[in-house]
Amino acid sequence: MSRIGLSSEFPGYKGEALKALQEAGSEIEDFICITKDGVTYEGVLIPRSEYGDDKHLVIKLKSGYNIGIRITPTTRIERIGSKARLAFNPASPPEQKPGLPRVAILSTGGTIASRVDYRTGAVRPAISANDLYSIIPELSNIAMIEAQILFSLFSEDMTPQHWTKIAETVAEYITNGVDGVVITHGTDTMGYTAAALSFALQNLPVPVVLVGAQRSEDRPSSDAATNMIGAVLAAANAPFAEVVVAMHEKISDESIVLHRGTKVRKCHTSRRDAFKSVDGNPIARITDEQITMLTNDYSKRNASTELILKPRFDDRVALVKFDPGMSPNIIDWHADNGYKGTILEGTGLGHVSRALFRAIGKTIEKGIVVAMTSQCVWGRVDMNVYENGRDLLALGVVPLEDMLPESALVKLMWVFGQTDDIEEAKRLLRSNIAHEISERTIKIG
Amino acid sequence: MSRIGLSSEFPGYKGEALKALQEAGSEIEDFICITKDGVTYEGVLIPRSEYGDDKHLVIKLKSGYNIGIRITPTTRIERIGSKARLAFNPASPPEQKPGLPRVAILSTGGTIASRVDYRTGAVRPAISANDLYSIIPELSNIAMIEAQILFSLFSEDMTPQHWTKIAETVAEYITNGVDGVVITHGTDTMGYTAAALSFALQNLPVPVVLVGAQRSEDRPSSDAATNMIGAVLAAANAPFAEVVVAMHEKISDESIVLHRGTKVRKCHTSRRDAFKSVDGNPIARITDEQITMLTNDYSKRNASTELILKPRFDDRVALVKFDPGMSPNIIDWHADNGYKGTILEGTGLGHVSRALFRAIGKTIEKGIVVAMTSQCVWGRVDMNVYENGRDLLALGVVPLEDMLPESALVKLMWVFGQTDDIEEAKRLLRSNIAHEISERTIKIG
Repeated sequence: MSRIGLSSEFPGYKGEALKALQEAGSEIEDFICITKDGVTYEGVLIPRSEYGDDKHLVIKLKSGYNIGIRITPTTRIERIGSKARLAFNPASPPEQKPGLPRVAILSTGGTIASRVDYRTGAVRPAISANDLYSIIPELSNIAMIEAQILFSLFSEDMTPQHWTKIAETVAEYITNGVDGVVITHGTDTMGYTAAALSFALQNLPVPVVLVGAQRSEDRPSSDAATNMIGAVLAAANAPFAEVVVAMHEKISDESIVLHRGTKVRKCHTSRRDAFKSVDGNPIARITDEQITMLTNDYSKRNASTELILKPRFDDRVALVKFDPGMSPNIIDWHADNGYKGTILEGTGLGHVSRALFRAIGKTIEKGIVVAMTSQCVWGRVDMNVYENGRDLLALGVVPLEDMLPESALVKLMWVFGQTDDIEEAKRLLRSNIAHEISERTIKIG
Repeated sequence: MSRIGLSSEFPGYKGEALKALQEAGSEIEDFICITKDGVTYEGVLIPRSEYGDDKHLVIKLKSGYNIGIRITPTTRIERIGSKARLAFNPASPPEQKPGLPRVAILSTGGTIASRVDYRTGAVRPAISANDLYSIIPELSNIAMIEAQILFSLFSEDMTPQHWTKIAETVAEYITNGVDGVVITHGTDTMGYTAAALSFALQNLPVPVVLVGAQRSEDRPSSDAATNMIGAVLAAANAPFAEVVVAMHEKISDESIVLHRGTKVRKCHTSRRDAFKSVDGNPIARITDEQITMLTNDYSKRNASTELILKPRFDDRVALVKFDPGMSPNIIDWHADNGYKGTILEGTGLGHVSRALFRAIGKTIEKGIVVAMTSQCVWGRVDMNVYENGRDLLALGVVPLEDMLPESALVKLMWVFGQTDDIEEAKRLLRSNIAHEISERTIKIG
């Protein structure tokens, strides 16, 4: 599958850049020094992609950031260390301790699984049970780990087919009796996958915890180990049995929070506390290795509960964010190209311009589900307040309360994995299946 | 223009619903009582749209919310008050006070301009200078008001053509010597319009303040008057000369904050403090009618500054939000249908799946601008960290730092209103024109 982003597929430099490297005797992952126009750059030479030009070298600086440097006739390149210096040589792992809870860790890729890899720019699966213990020896005091590498993906390359595979694998481990499952995942689309698993894994007996890192393990500010310890603690010991995301509550390391899979969103590109529960609070907090529930309304851990696995998704569903210049042609296009449903990300309480109404009406008449969420991110749609909203309801647009647009998209994909009947699809879409709709709070004013 | 959402265009009920109303002798805006299945609903009968069915009556309850009630043979309808009770009869306005600053108020529609209208469900322009003084008499102590009704639009019906008209009208008033301009606007797309005016009105001599309300003036919790007073105060007296949005800082009435037009976003569907400055702070706060600047980095008010008006926008620009099921066909479609640019709302630091790379490459080869923002909302894209980002850069995708996706869309529309040259367009897109890019903070870790 070409979309699995393994850098080893694109190792190379070409043209002038390649020539300069060959003259310097430098290879990928070597530590090199580049001097140009009086400035000296030191770092690790990292691979470039098939799309790269033939004029730049890219090195990873000590800071963890990459820069591209254009080669000119006066640029000097010096090899100052071999790639051997960067090899990943884990120490011998500590012993597994019998009697502890059994936790499965499924690795799918992302920063958290990339201790060595992002230091050199190459992405390879880094997490085996042994590797994990070596990197984070605290885990051996929490649980007996059974680790499996499922994928090695940047999470933006994750698709609904991957969600299916993850759900099926989680179900296998649960059937096999583990006390909890941890899934390491790139943070970019972790919210989407968390929502997907929330719908696919119903009636859970044990917790399923997604975890990522905003900074890779080789950077001083990494959140990888603290998030991972929190995730394994929750999988092993938490009293709830739901799909959650475990990430930093604040910038500091002091607490990890567990967000419900359908209500969580990555709300910052780089901060360690990027993940937020939207229209609600995290369901639990971990401080000093202690788990504190923050709500009484949760599904309890119960080993005898029978898991219901519904892992199918249909990706013929679109998420369309409205904007003031939007043409109705984009709505028509989806209707004419085999889509079974469209989640609109409208403005405010759930609006789009009247210019789109005719196209939306035609789409619905064709038997395509059109549903409304809000691009505000926070708050609930209410399409009864203003005329445009009422008219959209009259056209047959389905209002989705305070469902996140991303969770609504995933849910509609899941719904069409369960049924082809439009009325049943709409009924499922509006039903509260995995806490994707919050309780309505009392309205003031 | 049919998309101007005047309810009077759709006054009517039809079929069974119309018959029931006629039998009860009730008309639109009458106060009526409906009894059905033992439950009694009291409220104002409001108009329905052309899309409505013939079986429901819609009334506005005292709470301000509307409900639709299905008529059955046993439903009883009673008219308990005439529409005269709801007529808007403003008191005589106070006198204008000479010597105060001159402020122009341009009304474009929205909740803030709808004192009477939303009570009955009909939307009509409500703001003339006289109406304003009657509703908010405090204004006459702040400024001499020159009011003009520009549009009466739900803001989701606002288009780039409306932005042009607003910018041109603002420029006329400024040329005519006013000390500040206030624009009342529906909140749904106020952020987009604020960004548009930030690019269209350069070198401003005086402040331009957009203002809206989350709750209409006839509701006890309305923020309309407090926001309006804050906006007029800022237009009359603020030391800055920029395009800003004036809204509640918190749920309470105690402070109004002024957000930069390119950095503001509606982040809640209904709360009074829905508007937030993203990746930065508001530039000023108003408490007890005093304006406090929150930054030193702002353009100063200076009546002798010569306004530069650049009001043209080209709406052949799309905002495409990436999701894990997205097909490359949607990228191809934009490239094949006359779009000159696409703003991608990618994940995390600025990523989309590799499955889209070929389509993005083809789009760029056709001379279409493709630029990257993040759906995280907060934070900065950095496409040098991971391989997918680097490959997108190599394809020619333009990284837009911490520009909001919405501001980026508006900016690219504006850019193509200024130039057809692709390289010049990219240069303008990456230049910081109206604070749409924040200063880079020092990176930790």
